[in-house]
Amino acid sequence: MDKILRIDVGVSGGPSFQTDSLASYAGLGGRAMTSAIVAKEVPPLCHPLGEDNKLVIAPGILSGSVAAMSGRLSVGCKSPLTGGIKEANAGGQAAQVLARLGYAAIVLEGKPADDTLYKVLINKDGVKIIPANDLKMLGNYDLIDKMKAEYGDKVACISIGPAGEMKMAAASVAITDMEMRPTRHAGRGGVGAVMGSKNIKIIVLDDAGMAMRSPANVEKFKEANKNFVQGLKKHPVTGQGLPTYGTNVLTNVINEAGGFPTFNFKQGRFDGAAKIGGEAQAELEISRGANPTHGCHKGCVIRCSGTYHDKDGHYLTKQPEYETVWAHGANCAIEDLDTIAMLDRLDDDYGLDTIEMGATIGVAMEAGIAKFGDAEAAINLVKEVGKGTTLGRILGNGAGITGKVFGVERVPVVKNQAMPAYDPRAVQGMGVTYATTTQGADHTAGYAVTANILGVGGSVNALKPEGQVDLSRNLQIATAAIDATGMCLFIAFAILDQPDTFQSLVDMVGAFTGKETTADDVTALGKQILTWERDFNARAGFTNKDDRLPEYFKKEKLAPHNVVFEVSDDELDQVYNW
Amino acid sequence: MDKILRIDVGVSGGPSFQTDSLASYAGLGGRAMTSAIVAKEVPPLCHPLGEDNKLVIAPGILSGSVAAMSGRLSVGCKSPLTGGIKEANAGGQAAQVLARLGYAAIVLEGKPADDTLYKVLINKDGVKIIPANDLKMLGNYDLIDKMKAEYGDKVACISIGPAGEMKMAAASVAITDMEMRPTRHAGRGGVGAVMGSKNIKIIVLDDAGMAMRSPANVEKFKEANKNFVQGLKKHPVTGQGLPTYGTNVLTNVINEAGGFPTFNFKQGRFDGAAKIGGEAQAELEISRGANPTHGCHKGCVIRCSGTYHDKDGHYLTKQPEYETVWAHGANCAIEDLDTIAMLDRLDDDYGLDTIEMGATIGVAMEAGIAKFGDAEAAINLVKEVGKGTTLGRILGNGAGITGKVFGVERVPVVKNQAMPAYDPRAVQGMGVTYATTTQGADHTAGYAVTANILGVGGSVNALKPEGQVDLSRNLQIATAAIDATGMCLFIAFAILDQPDTFQSLVDMVGAFTGKETTADDVTALGKQILTWERDFNARAGFTNKDDRLPEYFKKEKLAPHNVVFEVSDDELDQVYNW
Repeated sequence: MDKILRIDVGVSGGPSFQTDSLASYAGLGGRAMTSAIVAKEVPPLCHPLGEDNKLVIAPGILSGSVAAMSGRLSVGCKSPLTGGIKEANAGGQAAQVLARLGYAAIVLEGKPADDTLYKVLINKDGVKIIPANDLKMLGNYDLIDKMKAEYGDKVACISIGPAGEMKMAAASVAITDMEMRPTRHAGRGGVGAVMGSKNIKIIVLDDAGMAMRSPANVEKFKEANKNFVQGLKKHPVTGQGLPTYGTNVLTNVINEAGGFPTFNFKQGRFDGAAKIGGEAQAELEISRGANPTHGCHKGCVIRCSGTYHDKDGHYLTKQPEYETVWAHGANCAIEDLDTIAMLDRLDDDYGLDTIEMGATIGVAMEAGIAKFGDAEAAINLVKEVGKGTTLGRILGNGAGITGKVFGVERVPVVKNQAMPAYDPRAVQGMGVTYATTTQGADHTAGYAVTANILGVGGSVNALKPEGQVDLSRNLQIATAAIDATGMCLFIAFAILDQPDTFQSLVDMVGAFTGKETTADDVTALGKQILTWERDFNARAGFTNKDDRLPEYFKKEKLAPHNVVFEVSDDELDQVYNW
Repeated sequence: MDKILRIDVGVSGGPSFQTDSLASYAGLGGRAMTSAIVAKEVPPLCHPLGEDNKLVIAPGILSGSVAAMSGRLSVGCKSPLTGGIKEANAGGQAAQVLARLGYAAIVLEGKPADDTLYKVLINKDGVKIIPANDLKMLGNYDLIDKMKAEYGDKVACISIGPAGEMKMAAASVAITDMEMRPTRHAGRGGVGAVMGSKNIKIIVLDDAGMAMRSPANVEKFKEANKNFVQGLKKHPVTGQGLPTYGTNVLTNVINEAGGFPTFNFKQGRFDGAAKIGGEAQAELEISRGANPTHGCHKGCVIRCSGTYHDKDGHYLTKQPEYETVWAHGANCAIEDLDTIAMLDRLDDDYGLDTIEMGATIGVAMEAGIAKFGDAEAAINLVKEVGKGTTLGRILGNGAGITGKVFGVERVPVVKNQAMPAYDPRAVQGMGVTYATTTQGADHTAGYAVTANILGVGGSVNALKPEGQVDLSRNLQIATAAIDATGMCLFIAFAILDQPDTFQSLVDMVGAFTGKETTADDVTALGKQILTWERDFNARAGFTNKDDRLPEYFKKEKLAPHNVVFEVSDDELDQVYNW
């Protein structure tokens, strides 16, 4: 991981590439790498789909090593959805393979000279960029099947579906999983549209002949990794809850807490929650021969990803995540797991963020385009997006645009990005994160559900404003650092609760890089990343007025607790005051 | 004009009203009144279509008097298009009639309890608010015909068409002219959507039994007005060009100057310009028995408005304005006056801003929705808007949304409002105004075409950055003050060139109000208005990053002069530094 691959798509006659040394980016990985490059190289006022934007793809610091859980790939750019800086990350195999191929980042830059679509092949022999108009408008599943036929099933792929080609602001970048299925998505903020704007359909990564990345201090690293894995296995969330039920273990928990947004954020509990929760889902999966306990990349020990089969026992999609079950389920008052799974499959195939799509359909239902609870209508709406019909183009550009086009007032977005599956009135720490993160409404940026609901890393009353700013600030800093390591964010449950597990992670980074590393270094890295991102956003025109929830969250009471969002603007302005 | 009518539409059982004293708003008119009320009373972060926004309708300080040219009506709110403060103004009869009825402002506030539509009748006996669901989705022409049948042809009306009811961000507020046709529009920024969000279809104003407003010093006023009118008549623009050809006198001038945006701002000259210019238009109008020399309100001495007849000699629409001829003509490469007139008629009937619609169709053509030059397609697209089809809803929300939905990069907007008919590269002073005005791209906010092209009020090289900031600043200040008087902005040509005509205006204001008034007072008023507006926008989250043109105007050279916009960001930041 000592070089950066830069692909200039703006050369007439087709893209050219060069391999750069890391220079000032040395030592960075994941979100630290993507945000550093975007902040330094992308003009903040450029058009997100224009020649000056760059798509940066970076494995984490530990990716490609034997470190457990180190398979996250960061994808960064100026976001077509928010207009600010964006880092979306995903699991799957690509981070490991890319790291082993020696690349700390791939940067797609420039503006295509014509509309030829390309695929990029990277292996031990180097880089090939090949015209691939035969791949135009293929869904991710068909696309990956073609790659499998051509390159075998040991490669890893980074691709876009039709939504990315159509430059929709809800378009994701898909990453293949261990079975080479396009199920892991850097979903948020329209990173797929930026890849589409560069006319790159797919990057195929083949690490045959390459070695595992080796740590500076092998023994110390091995020991730290062992302790780290033990820590993950002993924590109830990472050792039991997530493996058994997947992320959807949260549905009944958040619903019980009254923070499960239903009917487009109208109420905090959904009558049909139990029907779509993780317990019901795992049972159904098992009964159909699918597997609820499965990793999305090699080296995963939490194994929350799973598979979902249709009624006939055939693979339909990955096990839908909690956020997806909420977005396509409760938020649209849909209580049928097969519908949700079909929507998940369609989103993955078209290359769409399930959170943005579910929130968008909720807004469309509020606008009267379809009825809440109408499962068939929801499926048809997502199909419109995949086909790129006029309605589909609206929806494919997200909840904010959909709200504007149809004159809807209740649109749950911050910085134009749709809120995920926690109502900020009933989980006020999440509200602080939604409001203030550089990313637009994003649960992963500072997952206050930990202390607000799960009693992980302390306890802060979810319904009150007190303590939420400190909670969110600390989580945002820690998260940014974790997102730089390549580690799955779910390790946070264990490291927040278990100081020795946190120390194992710090030791692992130190042993790998060979540089003495302390907890303070981790904090400093997190702050550095957030500072780069905040600075980019400020130069793009963001102010504290963008760090606000839509007004109705302060006015409309949310049942069953009948609460509004109570963290004051002045308090929100203190999140980045460290 | 000693009271404010406030209509609260949020009362269950239907809107209620109260009449307030002017209190701190005493002495204000027009844009000063609308911007003062919006800045003071509307929370800057509220949803533009929600309960906290207010629609403020205000005649000018001199409206309702015998002062020539004093028929402008200001309409203000937080804009659904820009998200910032908005003042759109229009001629027609309503300002005069409203002023004579004694109202310095009408304020629509609150959020309707249900979807009942209302009409408001204001006459010497007071105010009536009447359910009027029979008017739902009527075009402005049919609507006004109904009012004529009910209230006679001496009333003045302020109304919205279907676009306003559908809360589209390009929706205008229509004002009837002297012949009681809905041809004068407060067009920009979606003020019609805000009226629609209050469920008020129309305000009928009847000043029967009311007297002309009388000045404090009758003799001084009469004398000043006489001199003022003489000044207007002797200036070549207000005395000859505008009366003879209407505003469309500009087409050949701006085209010759290379600043006539063609093919969605791709080039600065249009081959078909002569076919759609004012000379050809006036000749055609006269040949069909229409009249190119006609005032839009009583007391107008410039008479630029005119009428346009179809091939059979029947009234089709008002004489299309220069901005409309450009927007629906050159910008879409359409060179047929009858098509442009039909589009003007449709826009007026649906209640749409012709500038925003023309720019939007240009973007749609760039997206491949229709071909440049396809007149029939352009008409069909506007009809889609009127019908509220899915495509129509996109287009009806303006160029910015349309660009986002269809992934278009070249979208000529500032603060999400479409640029009017002067390419900022070839008329760089206009570029400064587009970039920096509080209103979003708006030619009327600081009409630098004067010194850049027409040699009015001095001369500044249109193709160079030097001097543009001073020019735009001074014009923006003067314009804000003029917009407060109720005076038509076209008086600016004469008052910029003729110090004695300017003095007559100052004298007229002083004689009317009875307060000594100097040129410095006019400047101070302009600065005060701009300060209120800038402050509102800052509180809504605007920064100097919003005071920029889209990047491509700094990169793409504009033929025939092969120029880019060269005023630097640092210079733009000096516009409000006075």
